[in-house]
Amino acid sequence: MIKVGIIGATGYAGQELVRLIEQHPDAQIVTLTSQSYAGKDYSEVYSSYAHKSYVCQEEDIEKMADICDVIFLALPHGVASKKINNDILNKVKIIDLGADFRLQDIDVYEKWYTTHYSKDILPEAVYGLCEINRDKIKGKRIVGNPGCYTTCSILSLYPLVKEKMIDLSSIIIDAKSGATGAGRGLSLPNHYCELNESVKAYKIASHRHTPEIEEQLGYAAGEKIVLSFTPHLIPMDRGILATCYATLNDNYTYDDIRRAYEIYYKDEYFIRLTKEGVFPETKWVKGSNFVDIGFAVDERTGRVIVIGVIDNLFKGAAGQAVQNMNILFGIDEKTGLDYIPVFPA
Amino acid sequence: MIKVGIIGATGYAGQELVRLIEQHPDAQIVTLTSQSYAGKDYSEVYSSYAHKSYVCQEEDIEKMADICDVIFLALPHGVASKKINNDILNKVKIIDLGADFRLQDIDVYEKWYTTHYSKDILPEAVYGLCEINRDKIKGKRIVGNPGCYTTCSILSLYPLVKEKMIDLSSIIIDAKSGATGAGRGLSLPNHYCELNESVKAYKIASHRHTPEIEEQLGYAAGEKIVLSFTPHLIPMDRGILATCYATLNDNYTYDDIRRAYEIYYKDEYFIRLTKEGVFPETKWVKGSNFVDIGFAVDERTGRVIVIGVIDNLFKGAAGQAVQNMNILFGIDEKTGLDYIPVFPA
Amino acid sequence: MIKVGIIGATGYAGQELVRLIEQHPDAQIVTLTSQSYAGKDYSEVYSSYAHKSYVCQEEDIEKMADICDVIFLALPHGVASKKINNDILNKVKIIDLGADFRLQDIDVYEKWYTTHYSKDILPEAVYGLCEINRDKIKGKRIVGNPGCYTTCSILSLYPLVKEKMIDLSSIIIDAKSGATGAGRGLSLPNHYCELNESVKAYKIASHRHTPEIEEQLGYAAGEKIVLSFTPHLIPMDRGILATCYATLNDNYTYDDIRRAYEIYYKDEYFIRLTKEGVFPETKWVKGSNFVDIGFAVDERTGRVIVIGVIDNLFKGAAGQAVQNMNILFGIDEKTGLDYIPVFPA
Amino acid sequence: MIKVGIIGATGYAGQELVRLIEQHPDAQIVTLTSQSYAGKDYSEVYSSYAHKSYVCQEEDIEKMADICDVIFLALPHGVASKKINNDILNKVKIIDLGADFRLQDIDVYEKWYTTHYSKDILPEAVYGLCEINRDKIKGKRIVGNPGCYTTCSILSLYPLVKEKMIDLSSIIIDAKSGATGAGRGLSLPNHYCELNESVKAYKIASHRHTPEIEEQLGYAAGEKIVLSFTPHLIPMDRGILATCYATLNDNYTYDDIRRAYEIYYKDEYFIRLTKEGVFPETKWVKGSNFVDIGFAVDERTGRVIVIGVIDNLFKGAAGQAVQNMNILFGIDEKTGLDYIPVFPA
Repeated sequence: MIKVGIIGATGYAGQELVRLIEQHPDAQIVTLTSQSYAGKDYSEVYSSYAHKSYVCQEEDIEKMADICDVIFLALPHGVASKKINNDILNKVKIIDLGADFRLQDIDVYEKWYTTHYSKDILPEAVYGLCEINRDKIKGKRIVGNPGCYTTCSILSLYPLVKEKMIDLSSIIIDAKSGATGAGRGLSLPNHYCELNESVKAYKIASHRHTPEIEEQLGYAAGEKIVLSFTPHLIPMDRGILATCYATLNDNYTYDDIRRAYEIYYKDEYFIRLTKEGVFPETKWVKGSNFVDIGFAVDERTGRVIVIGVIDNLFKGAAGQAVQNMNILFGIDEKTGLDYIPVFPA
Repeated sequence: MIKVGIIGATGYAGQELVRLIEQHPDAQIVTLTSQSYAGKDYSEVYSSYAHKSYVCQEEDIEKMADICDVIFLALPHGVASKKINNDILNKVKIIDLGADFRLQDIDVYEKWYTTHYSKDILPEAVYGLCEINRDKIKGKRIVGNPGCYTTCSILSLYPLVKEKMIDLSSIIIDAKSGATGAGRGLSLPNHYCELNESVKAYKIASHRHTPEIEEQLGYAAGEKIVLSFTPHLIPMDRGILATCYATLNDNYTYDDIRRAYEIYYKDEYFIRLTKEGVFPETKWVKGSNFVDIGFAVDERTGRVIVIGVIDNLFKGAAGQAVQNMNILFGIDEKTGLDYIPVFPA
Repeated sequence: MIKVGIIGATGYAGQELVRLIEQHPDAQIVTLTSQSYAGKDYSEVYSSYAHKSYVCQEEDIEKMADICDVIFLALPHGVASKKINNDILNKVKIIDLGADFRLQDIDVYEKWYTTHYSKDILPEAVYGLCEINRDKIKGKRIVGNPGCYTTCSILSLYPLVKEKMIDLSSIIIDAKSGATGAGRGLSLPNHYCELNESVKAYKIASHRHTPEIEEQLGYAAGEKIVLSFTPHLIPMDRGILATCYATLNDNYTYDDIRRAYEIYYKDEYFIRLTKEGVFPETKWVKGSNFVDIGFAVDERTGRVIVIGVIDNLFKGAAGQAVQNMNILFGIDEKTGLDYIPVFPA
Repeated sequence: MIKVGIIGATGYAGQELVRLIEQHPDAQIVTLTSQSYAGKDYSEVYSSYAHKSYVCQEEDIEKMADICDVIFLALPHGVASKKINNDILNKVKIIDLGADFRLQDIDVYEKWYTTHYSKDILPEAVYGLCEINRDKIKGKRIVGNPGCYTTCSILSLYPLVKEKMIDLSSIIIDAKSGATGAGRGLSLPNHYCELNESVKAYKIASHRHTPEIEEQLGYAAGEKIVLSFTPHLIPMDRGILATCYATLNDNYTYDDIRRAYEIYYKDEYFIRLTKEGVFPETKWVKGSNFVDIGFAVDERTGRVIVIGVIDNLFKGAAGQAVQNMNILFGIDEKTGLDYIPVFPA
């Protein structure tokens, strides 16, 4: 049994992680912490856990490192980079669900986020996008678990970038997310009556997942990419849909594009390509680790349009974190993750 | 491995059953049928199953009986009673999710529903409300799986009736259900824009779950019960909340009532009593087999008010059906059902 | 033109009032105040007003009394009773949307709410339920505008109580409200992801609208009434549905009941009785001042079940407040209120 | 009083038109027709009209032309073009809410839609986008009322195209619509439980509003435009949000762009430009004729991103149709349309 610690267990992503580890056949929670609710029973924070009994602990990562095999961090950016050091990494694997170990370019990190406090460690961190970096993840001590929008966006575009089928300067990602993406913190925009029955864009040309997508797609391309990313808030709990636009470099047909996707994804259990003419909906993957992807070639404009969907709390956060754990510990990648989507939910 | 057949696998309850059996460690689907979609791939009917491959079969219950250990029926009322006979029951266990084997009083059945075509078999059918009838279910050949409203209503009131703490003529159940309860069939009232952002009562004083609740609570009371039951439709996918009112027979306190509930439920894994002053929400049990129950004594009116919640497709249909299967086959009742609720979803 | 002042204009009910007065042909806003947003442009508080320009003022009721014909107060309970005195009432009409002038029984008020600071004035306040108290409202200086649940509940039951057709000790009101009823203040239960896709009961046997319903129905009955009232929160913005249960005093038929409703409501423009067998949904009255009422006789239990629906912010708050203004100023009661419901919305 | 006939009054857009004309001070409904519900009372089709009494008529446009001043058609495409001829236009003004008189390029119409049956009349039809074509509308006999997506998209981009600030080959419009846009006809994708809590794209690179946007923006540009348009379905009743992307032709600043918008819109009552850094939400315009527009310059990519929102049934259909009527009959364009958005709704 993999012994698991969870720091920041009372946010939505933290809670999803608790749920998945609890139901994981080869892992068990040793301790979970919460700054806001330390000392409280977890079931007071989430009534859905009324039949379980954990007490939220004060965080003490040093101690946790002694008793855990892996620690998940689900914290605001800038916090994890202060906590992690070599001593800890010598004792325990770290999977960080925050942003601190996702970007390798420190200047980019500090421009879009804040000061980074473990620049020495950053280079060994691996970007935990499992389907792309599986081999690089194995054996690592620390994983930067990808963002929700980025997971969906990168996986939607990766084969096209890798196969050099699109004009890299033409990429536009118009993404739509359910409200769990905004977290559990109170704010007027997330008040029920304000968010319900409405749709809006936010952080236009300034969302922090932009450089993360650019860096990873840049690695795939072998050159720097600058792209447009626009997130939108949708009146629903879970789900991300990314609508990706790019100009094709040639008169590629649907079949040409499909071949590219199959090169990279045909053996990927968690990536499901839809049939021609079919485009995925977020509801098809809710409560699961699946990424559904469909695409169309628009001959009129010479563009390809790719639609990708994920459950933002599952494949977009906790599910992928568990997938990374499975890879790190050398067990079947699907273990504890092979859920059929819950429908309709 | 228990070999499972599912007849009527493409309705919402049927699909939930497919999902739960697929994920059940000790059972596997041998065949699933659909009248509407025979010959089609199941993933065309439910895109959430894109990674699976079943073909929807024409129904042939005789054949299925030869190759299955248990057959689940998820059919409109009046259909199952035509299909079941002694030959079949000699070969295979039957769990009927429809109404045909729930009511023992044939006159009541025929008054509220339609002609019953297997009156000879009805007496041996057991009402599959697991927490109440567990011992009666064991060894049976045929189980009438309870309705969604009835499961929630009966479990909410059972201890009070059994302990004779309430005036049996005073029972009023005001129930609220998500829209999956209305099924997948198209109709104007279930068209998105009509149902969304609205609440309504329906089938007032005439809903067919009324006699089912009355019969079962009548058994508990040892006398005939007539009660009021009013269902409401709520703009959400899943969940039932039953608000139950009854006049107390004495000046019972909260603790008196609580003791009654604990007599019957303290060892029931899937029934969770909330703390005093806390009342359950449907979201706390979504995607799980739990029944959460809370109650208050209103000294001003001399009434007890009980709130019970379930996931109507899970404990209210497919989950309880699997629970019945587990009981019939003598395996741990929680097997394949021990999910933490998916939250927020 | 009636000169209007609004105190507490930035809550949901306050805003609805601003909207209705702005569109009222015979009234105009002279000043509007907000404690939280004083000095801010109203369109910063509500972007829907981007084409208008008001500045939220600091409240100064004395000054307002000099320049207004009527002042609406939309304030937390206990605040209005401190502000109102004889000097003010000599200068301006007051319509209070809060609870302070609704209950005549001061002990009941102080038990369910807080200390009352204008006990001398309370006796002359009229309960502004227009369809019932129209004649009493005329000429008054101060109106206690009814609560949302109470408006719906009282109007649903009034004819039955007045005509002595029901057992007064048997009344149960199970009410369902959209989330605007909980206001604009932030709280975890009203956070989008918590409230969405869920239903719950709250303040069971303890909601403050209970004594208000009891007092008014008590006047209608000519005797004290004690009843059960249970509010529920529904995942939608607007609307209240009250499901009312009572035991009939005799073998009354549907037609008997209908006659009772027609005695009181047949000339009431804003009350619409549905046809036999039809029960109203909240969506049918959204964005309007209408109250739709339907009912059924349940011969099996001897009960009548009445369903009433309103838009909680309109007839349940601001609309009725304007209706009271129209009565006070002797203009056609429908002025500025005769909107067809917005559907689907 | 303008005498109004409405053909196709029982769809969602038709109903919104009935509502707006009913509340219009200078117009009145003379007759309304419905193919599906002829002979039925309108309040049976829409319960929100319980206080009104119209009977749905069989359509007879010849007769209607004799008694009406203007006829609105809300019909499936291909139907209106069969009904309209010179005789009718000599007697009555026509405002067609369908697609038949929107496109001037007959080949484009017949490629994207179907055969056109009044090619002789088409050239005199005016595209009723009021803010752009106001002067051309005056005096016309027939108006093609714009589509919902097109109204939002064109108005969002018009100043940029007109002022030649963007690369015309770079335009991408990613649009999101509430479910009323899909109409009242039953279908599985619009079944509550399927659409709720999900988001999807549809008719990718093939939606019929594409050529309409292209034709109109092409007029503005003085050259042919080909662009990408992708509609999405959002789980809400009303509202369209268009996210528009285009590459800037120069290093334009926010202020440069703003000046362009103000040239065309500063005197437009129904167009509200948001402040810098503020982007509109659909909820801000619900139940109103307003178009809210905000934009940002993304220096990193050299693109401008424009967000426009409307209520699809109001400014996107019935409201604009009434606005066209007001223009045709020479009355104040705001008459019967000057509603503050209903919020929260």
